[in-house]
Amino acid sequence: MYLARIIGRVVSTVKQDTLHAIPLQWLQPVDASGKDRGTPVVAADTFGLGPGELCYYITAREASIALWKLDVAVDAAVVGKVDRIDLGER
Amino acid sequence: MYLARIIGRVVSTVKQDTLHAIPLQWLQPVDASGKDRGTPVVAADTFGLGPGELCYYITAREASIALWKLDVAVDAAVVGKVDRIDLGER
Amino acid sequence: MYLARIIGRVVSTVKQDTLHAIPLQWLQPVDASGKDRGTPVVAADTFGLGPGELCYYITAREASIALWKLDVAVDAAVVGKVDRIDLGER
Amino acid sequence: MYLARIIGRVVSTVKQDTLHAIPLQWLQPVDASGKDRGTPVVAADTFGLGPGELCYYITAREASIALWKLDVAVDAAVVGKVDRIDLGER
Amino acid sequence: MYLARIIGRVVSTVKQDTLHAIPLQWLQPVDASGKDRGTPVVAADTFGLGPGELCYYITAREASIALWKLDVAVDAAVVGKVDRIDLGER
Repeated sequence: MYLARIIGRVVSTVKQDTLHAIPLQWLQPVDASGKDRGTPVVAADTFGLGPGELCYYITAREASIALWKLDVAVDAAVVGKVDRIDLGER
Repeated sequence: MYLARIIGRVVSTVKQDTLHAIPLQWLQPVDASGKDRGTPVVAADTFGLGPGELCYYITAREASIALWKLDVAVDAAVVGKVDRIDLGER
Repeated sequence: MYLARIIGRVVSTVKQDTLHAIPLQWLQPVDASGKDRGTPVVAADTFGLGPGELCYYITAREASIALWKLDVAVDAAVVGKVDRIDLGER
Repeated sequence: MYLARIIGRVVSTVKQDTLHAIPLQWLQPVDASGKDRGTPVVAADTFGLGPGELCYYITAREASIALWKLDVAVDAAVVGKVDRIDLGER
Repeated sequence: MYLARIIGRVVSTVKQDTLHAIPLQWLQPVDASGKDRGTPVVAADTFGLGPGELCYYITAREASIALWKLDVAVDAAVVGKVDRIDLGER
């Protein structure tokens, strides 16, 4: 999974049938220091997170597990909200 | 899923049998500011989108779900057209 | 799928059993302007394309669909030859 | 699989149901010389490794094999701790 | 598949159960000119190749096909040794 910050919501009316009623977030992956890293991703989000919140998301086939339906045409889904990261000191 | 702008159509007569009658678009992935980002992708498109339109596409095994046929040799497919992106302010 | 130009053929006698009799091409992915982009890929090719030809290939699990055999140890396969790309003007 | 150094632990209370009781580590992939390389990854870890330890992890569908449960919404999991790497001299 | 040069062997005693008795190589992917390219990879190798040898490897789910066991927690495996690459001239 990767960490990302939610930067917006994707509004789409013309879409593949299995995607109806699945909210799509626009995520910016971030690195350890919280800086943007790599290409933003469109991901399904059933947690209703808001902009600015830090989450982690899964990709590929696993994404549909997050929706409890294996036949949904998604390849990225938010699976949790990050409370904090405990950085090690060793 | 990733956002992309449609930049053209791939014309191909010699192709794997399961690809017949599946329109192939040439997509340029874009980032949050609409700028090109990363390598263009060849994706199946059953929506008939035109050049310049903004869409999002899925990759890998999920792509064939978008075509309702699991035995098609595709690994990328357009699954929706973007109306707009609501950027958060928080 | 990604566009690529065929740059050579990989000759290999010691290989995993399911790969016997499967021709392996050496592909250089290209971007919209035909320039090299990213790492070259070794892909199965049942079309017998020659060096310099433009093709598109699929990756991961889908690649074995292209060979009509799901138990082959490949993760990349040529699935078509590009005749031309119609670039949009909108 | 990729090599990575454990840099912290991801604490998350709001998460997808199948992730409950699965410890999530924050990993920094490293290259041959031990230098950071690429985006940090959130991975399941059932070994209880500590910060600074070197491990290798798998990604995508394979990750859930590491947890002995195929229906878990993870796409990255630690599968071993690195004792040492014997570099070749040829 | 990608080309890579074997640069070492990963020694690991604490590892996921399905990985026991599976030799793990440390591979450096290379480009068309033989130069290092991208992040080194840990891959299963049942051919017993030595350091410096050129091979090609598969990734993701396909990797376990190379081991003839679908329930092994690997996502990369060597599937052949490269004898030579015939570069095209067209």
